[in-house]
Amino acid sequence: MTFGYKGSKGGLATELKGPADESIFVGLEESRRQGMYQCLPFFDGTEESAADDYDIEGLRDYQHRKSIFPFSDDDIERTLGASLDTWKAGDLTFTVYTPVRSIPDPETAAPADLQLALVPAIILELTVDNRKGTFARKAFLGFSGSNRKRTMRPWKIGDLTAVGQANSTAIATLDPTAYAGTAFQPEAILDPRWPENLDFTLGNTGLLVVEVPAGEIKTVQFTAAFFENDPATTGLETNYFYKSLFASMDEVLDYSLKNADDIIAPCKPLDDYLSATLGDVRSATLGHAIKSYFGSSQFLQTPEGKPLWVINEGEYRMMNTFDLTVDQIYFELALNPWTVRNVLDQFVERYSYYDDVKFPDSDQTYPGGLTFTHDMGVANHFSPPGRSCYEQAGLKGVFSYMSCEELINWILCSCLYLSHTRDVQWAKQNQSTLADALRSLVNRDHPDPQQRNGVMSLDSTRCQTGAEITTYDSLDKSLGQARNNLYLAVKTWACYALIEEHLLTLGEGLLADLARSQAKLCAQTIVDSADDQGFLPAVIGEGVDARIIPAIEGLIFPYIAGRLELVSADGPYADLRATLEKHLDLCFSTGVCRFPDGGWKLSSTSRNSWLSKIYLCQSIAEQLLKLPVDQKADNAHWNWLMDEDNSYFAWSDQMLAGKAHGSRYYPRGVTAILWLADQEAPLKSIREILLGNPSKQDALI
Amino acid sequence: MTFGYKGSKGGLATELKGPADESIFVGLEESRRQGMYQCLPFFDGTEESAADDYDIEGLRDYQHRKSIFPFSDDDIERTLGASLDTWKAGDLTFTVYTPVRSIPDPETAAPADLQLALVPAIILELTVDNRKGTFARKAFLGFSGSNRKRTMRPWKIGDLTAVGQANSTAIATLDPTAYAGTAFQPEAILDPRWPENLDFTLGNTGLLVVEVPAGEIKTVQFTAAFFENDPATTGLETNYFYKSLFASMDEVLDYSLKNADDIIAPCKPLDDYLSATLGDVRSATLGHAIKSYFGSSQFLQTPEGKPLWVINEGEYRMMNTFDLTVDQIYFELALNPWTVRNVLDQFVERYSYYDDVKFPDSDQTYPGGLTFTHDMGVANHFSPPGRSCYEQAGLKGVFSYMSCEELINWILCSCLYLSHTRDVQWAKQNQSTLADALRSLVNRDHPDPQQRNGVMSLDSTRCQTGAEITTYDSLDKSLGQARNNLYLAVKTWACYALIEEHLLTLGEGLLADLARSQAKLCAQTIVDSADDQGFLPAVIGEGVDARIIPAIEGLIFPYIAGRLELVSADGPYADLRATLEKHLDLCFSTGVCRFPDGGWKLSSTSRNSWLSKIYLCQSIAEQLLKLPVDQKADNAHWNWLMDEDNSYFAWSDQMLAGKAHGSRYYPRGVTAILWLADQEAPLKSIREILLGNPSKQDALI
Repeated sequence: MTFGYKGSKGGLATELKGPADESIFVGLEESRRQGMYQCLPFFDGTEESAADDYDIEGLRDYQHRKSIFPFSDDDIERTLGASLDTWKAGDLTFTVYTPVRSIPDPETAAPADLQLALVPAIILELTVDNRKGTFARKAFLGFSGSNRKRTMRPWKIGDLTAVGQANSTAIATLDPTAYAGTAFQPEAILDPRWPENLDFTLGNTGLLVVEVPAGEIKTVQFTAAFFENDPATTGLETNYFYKSLFASMDEVLDYSLKNADDIIAPCKPLDDYLSATLGDVRSATLGHAIKSYFGSSQFLQTPEGKPLWVINEGEYRMMNTFDLTVDQIYFELALNPWTVRNVLDQFVERYSYYDDVKFPDSDQTYPGGLTFTHDMGVANHFSPPGRSCYEQAGLKGVFSYMSCEELINWILCSCLYLSHTRDVQWAKQNQSTLADALRSLVNRDHPDPQQRNGVMSLDSTRCQTGAEITTYDSLDKSLGQARNNLYLAVKTWACYALIEEHLLTLGEGLLADLARSQAKLCAQTIVDSADDQGFLPAVIGEGVDARIIPAIEGLIFPYIAGRLELVSADGPYADLRATLEKHLDLCFSTGVCRFPDGGWKLSSTSRNSWLSKIYLCQSIAEQLLKLPVDQKADNAHWNWLMDEDNSYFAWSDQMLAGKAHGSRYYPRGVTAILWLADQEAPLKSIREILLGNPSKQDALI
Repeated sequence: MTFGYKGSKGGLATELKGPADESIFVGLEESRRQGMYQCLPFFDGTEESAADDYDIEGLRDYQHRKSIFPFSDDDIERTLGASLDTWKAGDLTFTVYTPVRSIPDPETAAPADLQLALVPAIILELTVDNRKGTFARKAFLGFSGSNRKRTMRPWKIGDLTAVGQANSTAIATLDPTAYAGTAFQPEAILDPRWPENLDFTLGNTGLLVVEVPAGEIKTVQFTAAFFENDPATTGLETNYFYKSLFASMDEVLDYSLKNADDIIAPCKPLDDYLSATLGDVRSATLGHAIKSYFGSSQFLQTPEGKPLWVINEGEYRMMNTFDLTVDQIYFELALNPWTVRNVLDQFVERYSYYDDVKFPDSDQTYPGGLTFTHDMGVANHFSPPGRSCYEQAGLKGVFSYMSCEELINWILCSCLYLSHTRDVQWAKQNQSTLADALRSLVNRDHPDPQQRNGVMSLDSTRCQTGAEITTYDSLDKSLGQARNNLYLAVKTWACYALIEEHLLTLGEGLLADLARSQAKLCAQTIVDSADDQGFLPAVIGEGVDARIIPAIEGLIFPYIAGRLELVSADGPYADLRATLEKHLDLCFSTGVCRFPDGGWKLSSTSRNSWLSKIYLCQSIAEQLLKLPVDQKADNAHWNWLMDEDNSYFAWSDQMLAGKAHGSRYYPRGVTAILWLADQEAPLKSIREILLGNPSKQDALI
């Protein structure tokens, strides 16, 4: 469910790359004029002309006088949190609940617990204050379905009144005064000339109408539910996991309404805590990001019953894009560590490959090793094993391979998973993979051990005449090129520094030594690359002197892994930390990494900035490097999201001078969860905040 | 599959209200310039900008130079028949096969026969004349999927190469030179820089590419297939019948390609016959209408295995709209009489009701009786029992009830079914329904037997304050109002005249007498209503003097039922025939029922004309009243369909002064099948033409 942008720009749908572009009706009869209605402004009147296709000569006598008008903007007040979105207008309060809740590991959980966490429905509440009213007023909720194939329809089962499109999207309520109707015009449902006309299913607008007696405040609960009966994916055929818990749309409607209070229980405590702790702008930002993340999530099941966790890449809908997984991992590890394990296993089992590597402008190839694909497919189609939907040979920019970065991402995610869960069994199962991953990373440094400097110098032969890129694919060379990239170099250092411990535990002493020595080489290369001023070049040794904030990104991994000594000012990598600290200081003090509004500019040479990465770097800057919270920047970043050209797309990542041109409707903003981290036990503190008192369910694996 | 309109205006889809608006690529490499291609003009370049969403700063190196251009209009030659649609351009010939074939009764047929008739796929052929070529040339077929939820994907199973969207639409071939690819640009598939880039599933354009050696003519067969795994309908849950014959899209692709020659066998003989018999304009018109009819057809199965036949109402997608069934019955009875029985049974079992009736402007009600709903639902949602999706209380125009007309339609369809099949068992099963139907029709004449005149005078109380309408719902009073309507009166007469025989056979002597006397009363009322000139008023006795061609419509039923004596110039209703003949003559001779281009104007007071009804009335005028074939009118009617504003919608019915404003993408044009009728045995002659030599499968029930 997407809504909040004016007009028919939101709606109910699954699997789309953006809002469904449906009208949503949330309204109330006026207090003084019976038969006149006010609505939140999420609708337009386009369906009125649909009737003209039937009435060729315009002889109509079926049309109703317009009686629904939007509330004026000044009368509307909105509060957006992580799990509540509340709209007040006149005597109407509308609340949408999207609880933040842990999903128990499906391999061990009881079905009842899974149902509560996975029911494909959202609880909505309408509260009407009719205490001063002199007559019973109608309140209503509805939408105009956008499914091109099927009509809207009203129905009843037992106490439940519903309206929806086919069996795929529906709203329902148990309120005893409720009735449902479909029509071209909502007016024809609110005030039907004859009640038997309420099932006019040629019209594509459906409403649920309830009554609030004079002199009362009344709250009515609704559910908005989703059901995809069809297999969810091709390539690898799967179904939505909820189909193993609920047999039909009707079951989802019934369950969600009967368990509504349990479903929404966590909402208010969390939102109260967040707004008290983070303040209005950050709590709204985080809430916005979490909702967009949930909107991209997809939990599947193979015909053999195996669970598959997928986060779609927003408007691009690529599945489990690995360079998003690595940024979203803090949110997932705090809530559901098993999903991280699930995704890492999917990469090992189906989306890994072994390659060779080569220097630029040379045909000589050298052994590369294990690495991973950029993603697992797109728009519900799983790519063939070992292939992403995205990566193409022969390119040096967008759509090229990310072999080295995804290898790094697998190592970093594995290390974070292991440090958080201490899942010894998984470590053992993946011993050879961890070993292969390390060897592969070293092979991408230099084939001659003597010439290694810790930093990637060779591209995968899969690139053919092209060259590898990074997650900043659409940015210029300062962040886009993988080879010798500063951002990637610091992440590479974090890989080596973190994997050492796990290799040692697994008895791989030689490889652990190799990791440590590579970490030192890498740190030294970075430190040595600083210029006289203290600035680090965006691409080391290739004359690309752009200044980039994400130089510091790699510091996050030791910090979150609880290895504070690796990033402390007096630890073994104090030089690296000091160098990065100095670099960041220069980025800001020289002004090259700021937009005029105070927003952060990730690269001095590009207008393209990534909000998710900004949130991540803010957390490093504040929590590790002890820079003060930059409220002016927070305001600027929030204003980008709320810009009239951007807010239609919910949360978006890439901002070209404040305008969303790509990575819209996107999940990666949950890096903002790091704002909640406590330095001593960052993931544990986030988990405690999100889940209230998690001690009862403290088992992480 | 809809195509033929320029641009991305056709495509592959099911259940839509119009074309899928996809690009279709049908092309060939040029003979002199390798790497340059010519295509039929059914595409545009909109996908090129889709890549921009990924490449925010426009750093692209993935783009291909444009190398595909449409053939010029002058180089394209098209031949449209009932089952072949052939496009020639340069060295390319593209043929689409839509065989006209009888579907055996599913209750008794062998699965293999049902598979051949019901496989949800169309055979397409590309023939390339490369005899003068000096290099092997690529030919290709493809499309850009419009499913909002799922991506395009290429795949292979065994010898089969396919590309499609999810598992719902796909094209495939067994040609051994074929390869498949997906991309933003077709150029990237035709000439990939690296072959491993062919599975770039971010792009939504998919092609199948084959090679034609120099010096050869080569024909490659393709299939275009459709599969809906989801339940087909709500309200009453059903699945597509073909799911009982084929388990998956892959099975459909495989079966249709391996049986392609059998599938297309009937095509050429039929089209050759039609163009030789009817001439170019009428054979193209009939072919166009049949394709649109097939596009609206839908064969379903209940969970209990019961078959349900549905014709959707074109862009409106109402299911089995009864006032269309009665016009399409000639085509269905000739091909598949069991489908008519199936639809009539559905109406009796679920879509009938008993009502009361009343005179206009009076609250006094009288017994009405059995009647039938306008339709069974809309856009794959079955309405509740006894309810249509369309009819509403309180109206006098569009969306009002058609209780009397649908009652008449059930009687007429039953009589035609019985006279054609002599299905005694069905007659006996429906004895009480036939009796109730007659009583109900008489009750709508007048509650006082003495005051009856054979014509409907009372409206159903379901109308409440409204009044009944006819199938000409969006026309003015001249054809829109049911009560005392001349068009409906002649159909009413046909009901009475035809049902008598069946009631008599069933031993219902008294009712048979009643029917005969009502027929006489009705005929007399019509004859008496003529004015001094001989013109009949559109509404009898209500001062509506519009002149309408469909006055003669009712004559078709006795004629097709083989009861020629009822419509002969010297039979018991010679007066009625002479009156109608005179009326029609005046309609034309005075010019009030002509458009300036020579097209027929159904009502002198409306610009809105129905092509299906024109074809029907043409057949009566030519075959029964012996008017000459009106070639100028045929040309005008064809030109309406081919008008640039209209032809996008395939075959359309309602034409407002030659422009399609409603009833577009419509099935009802198969009334043109009556052009083929032989006066002695009209349905038998049509059946023989459509099925070649039907003697082998002559059993009609």
